[in-house]
Amino acid sequence: MYQYLPLFLDTISFLFYQNECVKMINRRKQFEYLVSNLKDIPKENLNKEKNSVKRSPYHQRIHIESLFGMLGDPNGFSYFNGYYHLFHQWFPMKYSTNPNYFQQGWFHWKSRNLVDWIPVGEAMNNDTVFDKYGVYSGSAIPINNKLFLMYNGNSWTNTDTDDWHRVPSQLGAYMNENDNVAKLANPLIKGPISGYTGHFRDPKIFKKNGKYYSIIGAQTKAKTGTVLIYESQNLKLWNKVGEIKTNFEKNGYMWECSDYFELDNKGVVLFCPQGLKSKGNQFLNAFQACYAIGNKLDFRNLYFEGKKYEEIDSGFDFYAPQTMIAPDGRRILSAWMSIMNSNSPLIKYHYDGCLIFPRELSVQNDKLIQKPVSEITKLYTTDYKGKRTISKNQEIIAGLVNCRDIKFDISTKYNNAISIIDLFADRKNTNHLRLVLNRMKNRFIVQRGKAGLEFEDEFGNERSCKLKVENSVSIRIIQDISSAEIFINNGENVFTMRVFVPKDQYHIFVKNVNGEVNVKYQIHQLRKMSSE
Amino acid sequence: MYQYLPLFLDTISFLFYQNECVKMINRRKQFEYLVSNLKDIPKENLNKEKNSVKRSPYHQRIHIESLFGMLGDPNGFSYFNGYYHLFHQWFPMKYSTNPNYFQQGWFHWKSRNLVDWIPVGEAMNNDTVFDKYGVYSGSAIPINNKLFLMYNGNSWTNTDTDDWHRVPSQLGAYMNENDNVAKLANPLIKGPISGYTGHFRDPKIFKKNGKYYSIIGAQTKAKTGTVLIYESQNLKLWNKVGEIKTNFEKNGYMWECSDYFELDNKGVVLFCPQGLKSKGNQFLNAFQACYAIGNKLDFRNLYFEGKKYEEIDSGFDFYAPQTMIAPDGRRILSAWMSIMNSNSPLIKYHYDGCLIFPRELSVQNDKLIQKPVSEITKLYTTDYKGKRTISKNQEIIAGLVNCRDIKFDISTKYNNAISIIDLFADRKNTNHLRLVLNRMKNRFIVQRGKAGLEFEDEFGNERSCKLKVENSVSIRIIQDISSAEIFINNGENVFTMRVFVPKDQYHIFVKNVNGEVNVKYQIHQLRKMSSE
Repeated sequence: MYQYLPLFLDTISFLFYQNECVKMINRRKQFEYLVSNLKDIPKENLNKEKNSVKRSPYHQRIHIESLFGMLGDPNGFSYFNGYYHLFHQWFPMKYSTNPNYFQQGWFHWKSRNLVDWIPVGEAMNNDTVFDKYGVYSGSAIPINNKLFLMYNGNSWTNTDTDDWHRVPSQLGAYMNENDNVAKLANPLIKGPISGYTGHFRDPKIFKKNGKYYSIIGAQTKAKTGTVLIYESQNLKLWNKVGEIKTNFEKNGYMWECSDYFELDNKGVVLFCPQGLKSKGNQFLNAFQACYAIGNKLDFRNLYFEGKKYEEIDSGFDFYAPQTMIAPDGRRILSAWMSIMNSNSPLIKYHYDGCLIFPRELSVQNDKLIQKPVSEITKLYTTDYKGKRTISKNQEIIAGLVNCRDIKFDISTKYNNAISIIDLFADRKNTNHLRLVLNRMKNRFIVQRGKAGLEFEDEFGNERSCKLKVENSVSIRIIQDISSAEIFINNGENVFTMRVFVPKDQYHIFVKNVNGEVNVKYQIHQLRKMSSE
Repeated sequence: MYQYLPLFLDTISFLFYQNECVKMINRRKQFEYLVSNLKDIPKENLNKEKNSVKRSPYHQRIHIESLFGMLGDPNGFSYFNGYYHLFHQWFPMKYSTNPNYFQQGWFHWKSRNLVDWIPVGEAMNNDTVFDKYGVYSGSAIPINNKLFLMYNGNSWTNTDTDDWHRVPSQLGAYMNENDNVAKLANPLIKGPISGYTGHFRDPKIFKKNGKYYSIIGAQTKAKTGTVLIYESQNLKLWNKVGEIKTNFEKNGYMWECSDYFELDNKGVVLFCPQGLKSKGNQFLNAFQACYAIGNKLDFRNLYFEGKKYEEIDSGFDFYAPQTMIAPDGRRILSAWMSIMNSNSPLIKYHYDGCLIFPRELSVQNDKLIQKPVSEITKLYTTDYKGKRTISKNQEIIAGLVNCRDIKFDISTKYNNAISIIDLFADRKNTNHLRLVLNRMKNRFIVQRGKAGLEFEDEFGNERSCKLKVENSVSIRIIQDISSAEIFINNGENVFTMRVFVPKDQYHIFVKNVNGEVNVKYQIHQLRKMSSE
């Protein structure tokens, strides 16, 4: 994830990226109240943040969200010492005022079952010379009885002048079985490295054939995005193997949060190319998280033969994916349910950001398939089931809280039937998150325009994908107080988004245009995740 | 335009088209109250329709709309006897009840200047054996001191049984200088013709190299759309030349409302392919009106070498285009500002449908360019002009009525500036038709979701196109009480749509996200068109 600057600075940075250097300004203001530890902040100021967060009516029940301040990329997603571990970028004082403190580190959660998460606390703070201006993103791998963390430390030179520049270091740390982290004194890889700019970050570590590899996002001197692969025998000495070579053009000015893994006998590359323009109904969000599938990466020449890349998620809010392997071999995905620089309605409560509900990945026909992890059943409470034939608007009753695992199977003999599911709806179904299965046009559409608070309308309030026309379409929605994750046809397409509606908008409606449809549904109310 | 059936019958027809024969039902009910002339309908019933229409708050001021009942395709667009003539498909009793009469003919308007239109009255009724079930669409060409009309007469056999079939005839008629039409006794072309189904209609007549040609939409026995070209020396004997051959695949199950003309040294084919699936951000409406540009058609082998086709208009409501040549040589376009089977909010007032404001066409770089005809200046009344630098929401004051010719030039030095224009807005700008110039994603977006009455949401409430990123973007909007025609960058892209908002939603707002923009505007309030 890129640095989090106040909006004005971000704008300046964009100009800088895309047009070479338009204008730079000094960073004096940004770091005026730089602290390396929350302990250095007066309790009064901390309490102001915490109390503000309490006032939000939009708190999630089954998603990890920021305690206060801003949550960013998931980091160090791993299994170690009998627990799943999931860290995230944390900017606790991001929305503080009088003064606006700067602090950026990792916050730590752990879980026995992927659904109940215990907040452990801060794992790393920006307290060394190498990560003074931010403990940026990274990953983790268990090494003997410790968890090895590899991450990017951000530093700046000359922040008082307009001639600042970025010093990125790939750093290491070990977390012991008591969840205490000790940073290594010296960088594993010193940056910037020759041929690349200071945008060099987000190391994703993995082991293959007895060697350690790290895949790291980078920007070439020509201001194009790429990923570099490093290798190490001992986790101390790291050698650059080179840039990954792809069949497709490496669009964008920077690639962030890259990942590589092998699944179902294929190689999968994940990356977040910044600076993509929209194309048809693709790449509509400000920033994208993409994947490419091909034969397994050839580590001798770094040639990856996937022919194209596409978005991992077609919704409004999905970025910075990271994967891990569960003890039973499943490849599990986490991601940030947000887009950078988003003008979130939560900011006024002095917090923002949550992670997606963990998903199990598979590859079918060179497509990434995503499903909520099966452990979700541990959250099930009341069930609602039914079968109906539907044409006009009908309500489906399923509890009074927007926290559900909703499964619809919709079948019809009418080729041109257009089925509509409205979630987060008010009693009269005037406002809602609308899902449209348009068989006539082979198109699935999500409409957020009438779903509560206006939110990033300037990137459009509809998202859509091609809908395979079959007799029956399955739609599954993981619904939480302020989010929806929509899985079409068993996870062939996924749409993830935040939705901010009043609490009384908990209704669900179904209708059909052109003929009628048979609707089978199974809805599970979900309990709040346990934090103990 | 295809037959106008009650919704249920239409659904049946769709199934029939796309899946061969799923089910047919007899047409007894449809034609129970078939009349060939409004004179055969009790005055009381007619008055009910007329009075209902008066109650609508959505009447247009500068667009031809239906007096009562439903307006369909523009027909017979031509210049003759010192007037522009424009007919349209008319179903005056379409929304009548107790009983629901069936009558379908042409309604006639004429104009000296393309902007003030006189309603002449019914031009043709469904009163012969060949057009008993509908005077369908057609075209016109001046021949000496008369206007020759060539059109499709629709007939059915066995309407009382489930084994009905369609008999399409291409018919002729002459209109004299007193605007009286006399139909020819015998068909010019009897259908159905060998190798094609009963879907054979919408003859567009033109003269070239001393010969008359007619381009006619058709469906092959294999249920694919195409166009046929006929030729004649004398307007009486017509010979089939053959099917037009294209480089692109002839998608769709039927091509309606085809047209061919030459412009700026290129050949242009217009057609309305039915049955297209959506593709990215294209072909989103239920039905499409498309064009292809190539070298001029070779009339010997009917080979047209345009390589692709695209939509004429990227908006929500545009179908059945027809063109004519003005006395000064301009190629002028009319079209139906609607999509078939639309669930229009006007239906409850017992009328629906209007035509677009006439547009002048040109071809630049193999793209069709459209502009409102220059005669629009005759409608100008009060002008509002200004220049501003804008970031936050600002109102632009320009009168209290949504009937304007609005021109914006928006320039900025910020690459990522996202400019927003809200029209049809309420005082607080909560509801509006939103136009988004998203430079960051090279995307222009129109959002209708918050613009008054919900209307065909099931086909999506956003439309978009690629936005060429230049320092300055020009946007022109022809706004009427219940419609907007949006011309991007001098007519490179056009978005046409109906919008149904309360009268007090006449506000205009502009804002910008990321940096600021310079906005130059020139807004002309428009007088109502004169009908005398």
